[in-house]
Amino acid sequence: MHKDAIARIHSSFAAQSMMETLGAELFEVSSGLVRIKAPILPGTRQQQGFGHAGLTFSLGDSAAGYAALTMMPLDNEVVTAEIKINLLAPAKGDWLIATGKVVKPGKRLCVVTAEVHAVSDGTETLIAVLQGTMVPVPR
Amino acid sequence: MHKDAIARIHSSFAAQSMMETLGAELFEVSSGLVRIKAPILPGTRQQQGFGHAGLTFSLGDSAAGYAALTMMPLDNEVVTAEIKINLLAPAKGDWLIATGKVVKPGKRLCVVTAEVHAVSDGTETLIAVLQGTMVPVPR
Amino acid sequence: MHKDAIARIHSSFAAQSMMETLGAELFEVSSGLVRIKAPILPGTRQQQGFGHAGLTFSLGDSAAGYAALTMMPLDNEVVTAEIKINLLAPAKGDWLIATGKVVKPGKRLCVVTAEVHAVSDGTETLIAVLQGTMVPVPR
Amino acid sequence: MHKDAIARIHSSFAAQSMMETLGAELFEVSSGLVRIKAPILPGTRQQQGFGHAGLTFSLGDSAAGYAALTMMPLDNEVVTAEIKINLLAPAKGDWLIATGKVVKPGKRLCVVTAEVHAVSDGTETLIAVLQGTMVPVPR
Repeated sequence: MHKDAIARIHSSFAAQSMMETLGAELFEVSSGLVRIKAPILPGTRQQQGFGHAGLTFSLGDSAAGYAALTMMPLDNEVVTAEIKINLLAPAKGDWLIATGKVVKPGKRLCVVTAEVHAVSDGTETLIAVLQGTMVPVPR
Repeated sequence: MHKDAIARIHSSFAAQSMMETLGAELFEVSSGLVRIKAPILPGTRQQQGFGHAGLTFSLGDSAAGYAALTMMPLDNEVVTAEIKINLLAPAKGDWLIATGKVVKPGKRLCVVTAEVHAVSDGTETLIAVLQGTMVPVPR
Repeated sequence: MHKDAIARIHSSFAAQSMMETLGAELFEVSSGLVRIKAPILPGTRQQQGFGHAGLTFSLGDSAAGYAALTMMPLDNEVVTAEIKINLLAPAKGDWLIATGKVVKPGKRLCVVTAEVHAVSDGTETLIAVLQGTMVPVPR
Repeated sequence: MHKDAIARIHSSFAAQSMMETLGAELFEVSSGLVRIKAPILPGTRQQQGFGHAGLTFSLGDSAAGYAALTMMPLDNEVVTAEIKINLLAPAKGDWLIATGKVVKPGKRLCVVTAEVHAVSDGTETLIAVLQGTMVPVPR
């Protein structure tokens, strides 16, 4: 990827205050693939003490959205039209890592998937899969 | 609803630190229907300044989950098995209000929907619809 | 609705050979709402003798798609971008009736829902709910 | 896989009259993975002459369901609790091939995905992806 295209993703990510609230970091950006990681903070838990579904969703949705944005023109932003999450296991561990991928790019619609893993003592467990549709919007 | 059943929902909600981070409040609990509201805080926004999809999702998912919990035995908790969100309009305004409803209760699976409205100067706009499956787990 | 707009839905429906294979009939067309019904034929069953999920899906998807088409320009056709179905009960009875509705019309995307009921001796049971996105395409 | 387990899948598939109506054949069964193929018959088309979304769905849903069944006890059958399909391209060509895979097996819920390809002159095009939940039921 061109450095301007990578910078655009970092700049959009940095403008999402929700990502900062969740402690999330963008740590891989390549064409059609983006990875985001976040700890399970004291303030992002559900009633049993595990990471909240909203945390897992936010990371998966953002990774998928930015994966889509890597394949869109530089003057576009991206929004989620729809996305579905299947939660497979509790979000527990040191980190969550969301990997978003483009399944089918398109000018009007971009179909994406994401996987979210929980990392505990170096072991990764798949805790969620997402499948959705991203749409380009003018910046 | 029996007051113990209502208290159980409030107690579970209060144990979700994510709800506090989002500034969310539980403001209606009846059999098969739960409403949650939250402001769009400075820390829960996306890159264009609107509420983040993760905020809208978290409110809708929680309202739907607690609607399911109103119809489960008192010694159960509820977790999301899967849920899908269609986003209809930007999350902008003074408040978001999520209304979760039970479509089909069940011992193993409970099918739910939720609507999320943005309220601006007293006008409500439907910004998202969700459809999903909740499962009971031992408390 | 204008009679040309109604005729357009009937003409598109009649061109779907799948609907004839399933024995499906269009029996209500109004702005943003379409109803389709079909028997559970000997040839559209699953392994336990109930209607196949593919039958329930086909009716729900078509009702939702045509509901969207009632709100699109006359020179458009409609295709499904994505749709999700939650199956609530076995498809058994005399008829299945699918009711599709528009949640949010739009030039690029139209968000829809559908419900499918099984009718047995005059009693209706909700057997499935669907939520999806339709897109206009040139005719 | 044990030959009894493979025979069970073939026997359940053969009992689905819908699969015969669609001209579908089960052509690969292994642990956690099932492939089904079908032609685009004159009777399974949509209004533009391509394969109907209901055909693509039926093949993907069945492949995913049988993939789940390969990992369930021999005295179980499987039903779809919910499934979502994203349609990526028109269903046109000589054959459709649906590949179902298990993402996460489980006693109560089994999370699955499926891909559907259209094959035209030996070239495969990905036309749909599905993600869903299967549940075991007594035979």
